[in-house]
Amino acid sequence: MNINGKHYRTIWLKEDNNSVVQIIDQRWLPHKFVIEDLKTVDDFENAIKNMHLRGAGLIGAAAGYGMYIATLNAPKYGFERYIKKSAEKLKKTRPTAINLSFAVKKQLKNISNACSNNDKIRIALNTAKEIADQDAEFCRRIGQHGLKLIEEITKRKNGKTVNILTHCNAGWLAFVDYGTATAPIYAAFDKGIKVHVYVDETRPRNQGARLTSWELLQHGVPHTIITDNAGGHLMQNGMIDMVIVGSDRTTYTGDVANKIGTYLKALAAKENEVPFYVALPSSSFDWKLRDGRKIPIEQRSPEEVKYITGLCEGSIKKVLLTPKKSPAANYAFDVTPAKLVTGIITERGICKANEKSILKLYPEHKKPLQ
Amino acid sequence: MNINGKHYRTIWLKEDNNSVVQIIDQRWLPHKFVIEDLKTVDDFENAIKNMHLRGAGLIGAAAGYGMYIATLNAPKYGFERYIKKSAEKLKKTRPTAINLSFAVKKQLKNISNACSNNDKIRIALNTAKEIADQDAEFCRRIGQHGLKLIEEITKRKNGKTVNILTHCNAGWLAFVDYGTATAPIYAAFDKGIKVHVYVDETRPRNQGARLTSWELLQHGVPHTIITDNAGGHLMQNGMIDMVIVGSDRTTYTGDVANKIGTYLKALAAKENEVPFYVALPSSSFDWKLRDGRKIPIEQRSPEEVKYITGLCEGSIKKVLLTPKKSPAANYAFDVTPAKLVTGIITERGICKANEKSILKLYPEHKKPLQ
Repeated sequence: MNINGKHYRTIWLKEDNNSVVQIIDQRWLPHKFVIEDLKTVDDFENAIKNMHLRGAGLIGAAAGYGMYIATLNAPKYGFERYIKKSAEKLKKTRPTAINLSFAVKKQLKNISNACSNNDKIRIALNTAKEIADQDAEFCRRIGQHGLKLIEEITKRKNGKTVNILTHCNAGWLAFVDYGTATAPIYAAFDKGIKVHVYVDETRPRNQGARLTSWELLQHGVPHTIITDNAGGHLMQNGMIDMVIVGSDRTTYTGDVANKIGTYLKALAAKENEVPFYVALPSSSFDWKLRDGRKIPIEQRSPEEVKYITGLCEGSIKKVLLTPKKSPAANYAFDVTPAKLVTGIITERGICKANEKSILKLYPEHKKPLQ
Repeated sequence: MNINGKHYRTIWLKEDNNSVVQIIDQRWLPHKFVIEDLKTVDDFENAIKNMHLRGAGLIGAAAGYGMYIATLNAPKYGFERYIKKSAEKLKKTRPTAINLSFAVKKQLKNISNACSNNDKIRIALNTAKEIADQDAEFCRRIGQHGLKLIEEITKRKNGKTVNILTHCNAGWLAFVDYGTATAPIYAAFDKGIKVHVYVDETRPRNQGARLTSWELLQHGVPHTIITDNAGGHLMQNGMIDMVIVGSDRTTYTGDVANKIGTYLKALAAKENEVPFYVALPSSSFDWKLRDGRKIPIEQRSPEEVKYITGLCEGSIKKVLLTPKKSPAANYAFDVTPAKLVTGIITERGICKANEKSILKLYPEHKKPLQ
């Protein structure tokens, strides 16, 4: 997508230097646009863990590039051991994100198939690029499938504005390009359909208020930032036509792990008969887990709840929101049970949130389950 | 309740000066403890509107004292006209708060019964004190009634910690003393029952993170601050034994207007079979309104969503959280339908959230409805 008219992805190889990966350091958005160089596995570990980059697809792509960087550094330390250690290090950074282990496993498999170290490096680079390209292409297709849902609503409303609620940032900043939850919105907007997005601010890290709003602003999509508390009231009062969120991991039975607070919006959508869609590429499916309650839920630092950063007199400041001595807890995700999900928008089409419907779209995953 | 060992109410007459009312300016909590003098009706208007004070009971008490201050200044401007104008001014400050119009009407009625201006002033002062004293006494009784619910849970759990979720600040800072949602918690804690409170931070003004946590900390009650997004996850995982919230206005049919986000917690409580209680003094009942959807919902400035204040390097700073150009919306309350409410804790006892049960406790309100 574009930033100030220039096309960007969220992760790329530095021009003329194949040993440096570059990312947008998202911690400074929307106030500053900072590009960061990643040169070591520790750089990747730090960037993923401390959320210089975040989002299901982008974490996967970063893990792919991180493993490539590992192959570059591996010859110095004993190849196999170093690769294994790097894989473990990267997998531990964000335990809920399924794309992460997906990308690491894919790299490990492909690297192990190569003979020489140089071959391994070449294959790891190709795999990293392939993961990133596939992520972008899948998101583009999600946009095309989801577009149909928005078209149906605008038709029913005789061309009146379609109001969409989204939580967190499942936008292009969370992927390599396009985004998942935002892809149908961008596609609809580009087609001239009147859309308006209510953006949940998404405490504690405010990915909605900081990132989704910034994306939409860059693209010119009308939007309004609301507190996470407001969505129920809006749905109760007929102000939301549909909800679209992303997912960090979805079981093949349709249980959806996503940013903390998603579950509350799903409950309100169900109660008020607002369609609740989850957009995800197949890399976010967990093909082994039947029960969403078994998805590990990451607990992050209480400091993320107690402090917040924002722009103050031209510089970025961190302020304390609570009594210094009060403890805080920081659960990063929750699980929305399949029964609350109207449909899942994937790169192959839209399906219901149940095993039968999901496996009909992905028949190649049927076998291991029998 | 106590602050640093000294007993305070949230509003009082200045010692040795009956023409000045003092309040805790809650905008600076938990970082600074500031007492503010209110000397004119405009001071009261500003303090209520801009939330130097807030909360159903305290707004009512402030309106009572504001009308008293109006009688002090009224002789200069033409008594009746000035009183009427002041009443209108105060009533407009926070449209959702029923205690506000309750207090203003009570003052108007009592003042109109007096003959001389001096008599009116004397009566207005007595009425203001009476409103404040009654608020404190009602909250104390709410604590005693609600205590029984907590005792039942601790008994069922064989003395294990009772985990209570609360939203916003329906603590003593929202009333004259004790609080409503917090009153049973303080009563249980003082009786030696093990309680732990999950405090919703309550965006956008963070009354939970700033005020409820500060109150609980001062009193020594174990608590954990969480984002508004987290409550659903906690309930889903059996980590909450009961929810207690306050209310800014409750219909006589049991629909509950309270701080935005309450509705989402009520939905999650229902879904997960967690008892959901609303604590309120009878002054927060709307005896005329049958349908909660007709309660006016205040919209506040979008700046409250876009900016936040906190402590930074020893001073209080305001930081921008969003892109400067992104619009925001700020609905301050929502309405939880009666069907989601397990019970209402009042100064007269606990009742169900329906017309029959509420009017059984308050039979004097039966007549105007027939």
